[in-house]
Amino acid sequence: MELLNKGKAKSVYKGEADLIIEFRDDLTAGDGAKHATMEGKGALNAEISARFFELLDEAGMETHFLGYEKPNRHLAKEVKIIPLEVICRNIAAGSILRRYPFEEGQEFTPPLVEFGFKSDEYHDPMLNDEVAIALGAVKDRGELNRMREMTLRVNDILRGFLAERGVILVDFKLEFGWDRDGNLLLADEVSPDTCRFWDAETKEVMDKDRFRRDMGDVLEYYREIRRRVYGD
Amino acid sequence: MELLNKGKAKSVYKGEADLIIEFRDDLTAGDGAKHATMEGKGALNAEISARFFELLDEAGMETHFLGYEKPNRHLAKEVKIIPLEVICRNIAAGSILRRYPFEEGQEFTPPLVEFGFKSDEYHDPMLNDEVAIALGAVKDRGELNRMREMTLRVNDILRGFLAERGVILVDFKLEFGWDRDGNLLLADEVSPDTCRFWDAETKEVMDKDRFRRDMGDVLEYYREIRRRVYGD
Repeated sequence: MELLNKGKAKSVYKGEADLIIEFRDDLTAGDGAKHATMEGKGALNAEISARFFELLDEAGMETHFLGYEKPNRHLAKEVKIIPLEVICRNIAAGSILRRYPFEEGQEFTPPLVEFGFKSDEYHDPMLNDEVAIALGAVKDRGELNRMREMTLRVNDILRGFLAERGVILVDFKLEFGWDRDGNLLLADEVSPDTCRFWDAETKEVMDKDRFRRDMGDVLEYYREIRRRVYGD
Repeated sequence: MELLNKGKAKSVYKGEADLIIEFRDDLTAGDGAKHATMEGKGALNAEISARFFELLDEAGMETHFLGYEKPNRHLAKEVKIIPLEVICRNIAAGSILRRYPFEEGQEFTPPLVEFGFKSDEYHDPMLNDEVAIALGAVKDRGELNRMREMTLRVNDILRGFLAERGVILVDFKLEFGWDRDGNLLLADEVSPDTCRFWDAETKEVMDKDRFRRDMGDVLEYYREIRRRVYGD
């Protein structure tokens, strides 16, 4: 298989008609400064992310997802990735507390959407609409508004689904891309690597923050997320 | 006189009916980490800023400015300052080059407007509309749009005025406030402390960057800006 791109936690290969996305066991934090390998992490993320993409597809959202191949692969449509990450926050946690005087645990109503410029060199800086356009990441504000709206829909759908399973969706990061016909598709992954999940009762951290903050039992919690998402 | 507020470079006193703003000789940079006093700087800034406010008033813009009292005072309407700084950039210079991959000297068409949250503790972080609203700095996006539009008008007016005098308006910072009747007024100052000015021919720096970057001859260039602005 021809390797098209090796990211920090996924490798993308050219498939027969589409793309094959391999979820690897690598975990990184701090723009790659911290790194570990945890056996089975890739498979867990692929499986969890597949369920979320299925849910979004069922709700009529356009995504790059075509199917899940056990243990750790997605089949996906080829898209030209937009060099922005879209972050949606329901509750104040993580980097935003270092940037602004919000209180940890403070709820955002409406949810807070931010765009970051994908760049390790510049540490994925947040930007406003004008800067995103000036950097050439998007053509105009309309494209940003479409991403914003799709992100809020993802939030609505996943937040309710997870709440029924005793999980709080604190925040998450999405990526989008353009397919060959000019459709805007949700791409990348939705997993404990890219979301913050808290247990609704105990408020325990059930995501990559366990790795970032050296809290231990990383995979145990990823497994618990998988179990709740699949209900088995 | 009752001191209402002592900022890094200006002191605000309660006047008989309105406010008295005293432009001091203090120069600071790096959130106050670097400090100097240069005799006559306050008077130069007060005089330069007065000319700009007069120009904006003549163009029909609403500002807090009521008058200039030699050597270093403005009379101004009392406003409740909005805790945002609005930055307008025609050319890439300064902090934006450290945050994003723009090239120094790159022109922004249209001009780039950013909002920063006024906070030394958080180093005046840039923010997007959603964050500004969540922080309670403004009520809604409409208020931000009004500030954006007024900022672009200031840019149109000052940029043309300065161009005729051989000065490039690279970027500038504005502050706004609400008066008692709920009008949005341009407040604060417009001076070599808050703008980047380059000589149109030689591209020499004619503003506070001379202090920030230890280039020397700070007041000589402030005086030259005053001379060009007043045409004497």
